[in-house]
Formats: sequence, structure tokens, C-alpha cells
Amino acid sequence: MSEKLRQHIEEIVTLTDEEFEHVLSHFTYREFLKNQYVIQEGDYVRNDYFVLSGLLKSWSIDDKGKAHIVLFATENWWISDPQAFHNQTKSTLNVDCLEDSKTLAISLENREKLCTEMRKMEYFFRRKTTAGYIASQNRILSLISFNAKERYEYLQQQYPGLLQRVPKSLIASYLGITRETLSRLTSQQP
Amino acid sequence: MSEKLRQHIEEIVTLTDEEFEHVLSHFTYREFLKNQYVIQEGDYVRNDYFVLSGLLKSWSIDDKGKAHIVLFATENWWISDPQAFHNQTKSTLNVDCLEDSKTLAISLENREKLCTEMRKMEYFFRRKTTAGYIASQNRILSLISFNAKERYEYLQQQYPGLLQRVPKSLIASYLGITRETLSRLTSQQP
Repeated sequence: MSEKLRQHIEEIVTLTDEEFEHVLSHFTYREFLKNQYVIQEGDYVRNDYFVLSGLLKSWSIDDKGKAHIVLFATENWWISDPQAFHNQTKSTLNVDCLEDSKTLAISLENREKLCTEMRKMEYFFRRKTTAGYIASQNRILSLISFNAKERYEYLQQQYPGLLQRVPKSLIASYLGITRETLSRLTSQQP
Repeated sequence: MSEKLRQHIEEIVTLTDEEFEHVLSHFTYREFLKNQYVIQEGDYVRNDYFVLSGLLKSWSIDDKGKAHIVLFATENWWISDPQAFHNQTKSTLNVDCLEDSKTLAISLENREKLCTEMRKMEYFFRRKTTAGYIASQNRILSLISFNAKERYEYLQQQYPGLLQRVPKSLIASYLGITRETLSRLTSQQP
């Protein structure tokens, strides 16, 4: 199953078997059950998680107790509280599982160690972070300038198949629209 | 004036005079006048811009012709269309100047060359991109879960002094709130 991590890394840099074994030794295999928390608000965030299978979400709660979804993570995505992970501070987000999930977890210390020891991995993480930054910028643009229909279409394009795996109420929360607006949009689909 | 770039880099890595001269030789000094476009939607994006002085904004136009502000960039910020810059595709954003602005521009080719030649610079850009990613995640959180007052307070914290330099209509556009809501918020300030 760790082959998935190798394929993911090799989209950017090529590794020998030996190099991949070394990379993999910096990760810890972690399984979580549906509904289980991976990170709870207020926790120190030890790890960034590469998703092998399953589905997770990160989310925050506002002052009124309303949940807002930041990210869905399926196979080949990474999930954590990036700020708390990189600054080694307490989480302002929650991460939990919508399905039983298998992950490879890496600590900040091990991530930095890999970057120092292996130039290829520093390049890999720089490229992945750039891709994450670009995706975030697009999410910002979608939030400030897309209407509900455009946001919904962007979600479908970004996460193909997600709509079949996630309750509609969570999709609406991710999009920042009401459940009713979402129903209207989904019923318009061919 | 290039000292500002050196200070900015040296917040993360230390450079000798010789190393900094080498870094600087990869940048081009570019001045822009108030209202001048740095990037126009549809252009290929050649450069990422480090701001020495002045004030720029990046923004997009929706189907109805309404402008939405993605970023303000003052001294020591970087501005471009990140997706178009990194993928060498046509811009979906505009970047223009709210004040006369002085910048140091770097092409993707030169940025990658610096990263390959100087390990310190690869580390620097990895760390800067991580910080940009975290800032974007916070912007996303503020858009999906903050009310107008909280967004306004977050803007004040993120860009101290900006409110004195930017028309209120642009602040409202950045926050995704109406001009009237913003007036209500600013009049409540002590």
C-alpha cells in the first residue's frame, strides 16, 4: 500500500528502491475508524497525513457553534492543520474521518530531516507546497468571486466522485451555501 | 534599496555579501506608476514581484464585471498570479498599482536556477511558500467562518496601516462585504 506514496512522490522526482525505503522509514502507518478524530482543536499537531485510502475532513467551529469545512482529503491528498503543524502550535482545526481511513503520518522533525538529507525530497516538498498554495489561491478566488453554481462545479472538478461519498450537508458547508441552494443545484444536474 | 530583499531573505537564511550579490543578479529592478498594470488577465506571467515600496493589488473580474480583490501587497510582500507564474500559463488575474511602486522581479527560470545552485535559496523558497500556504489557509478560514467584523479585524492585524492607504471600496471588495457594512464597522472603531 505504501506504493501509493511512491507513485505520488514519483510524479515529481524519481527514487531508487533504496531511496524510497529511506523515505518510507520516516513515516508511520496510521489507521483511523469512521468518525474518529485525527486532530482535535487545541491539540498540538504532531503530523502531516498522506491519505492511502478513505476520506477525511478538516473543519473549524465558529463562535456560534457552526462548523465550516476547510478541506476534504481522499486518496493521495495530504491533511493536517498546516499552521499548527509547521509552527508546532495548538490546532485551531479539527480533522476527522468520514470513512475508515489508512494514512502515512510524518512528523515535522522527520519531514525536515528528509529535506536536509535528500535534495530530491526538499525539491518534492517545495513543489507540493507550491501546488497546495496554488490550490488555496483558487479556493479563495472561488469563495470571493464564484456564485453557488460555479463553486459547485469547481468542487466536482476538484474532487470527482466526492458527491457520492459525502452527506449533502457537508458539501453545502464546504461551499458556504445553504442545503436548499445545494439541492436546487444538484437537481439541475443531467 | 535591494537591502530590503536581503533582510527579507535573512529572516530565514544567512547570506554572505557574495552570495547575496549572486542572488540579486537573478532579479530585475522594475518601477511602476500608480494605476499601471503589472499583469493583465490573459497575459503570460513572466515574473514574481518582491515589493520594495508602494502598494499593489491582485484581482479578478467575474462574469458580471464585478472586481474581487485577492491580495494587497505592500513592502516585503510578493505578488503575481501564482498559478500562471508556476505553470507558465496565461493569467486569470490582474495586478496593478495603488501607489507608485518599486519591485524586484524574478522569472521562474531564474527562481529555479537559484534553487538548484544554492541550497540555502531552495530552503528559503520552500519556507516562504509554506508561509504563503498557511496565510492562504487562514484567508480561507476567515472567508468561510468569520463574520464581517472578524474579517475586518483580521485585515487590520494582517496589514497594519493599510486602511489609511486604500479606498474603502477596495477594502470592502477584499473582505467580500458591502461598502455600507464596512462603514458601520469603521465608525465603531475607538
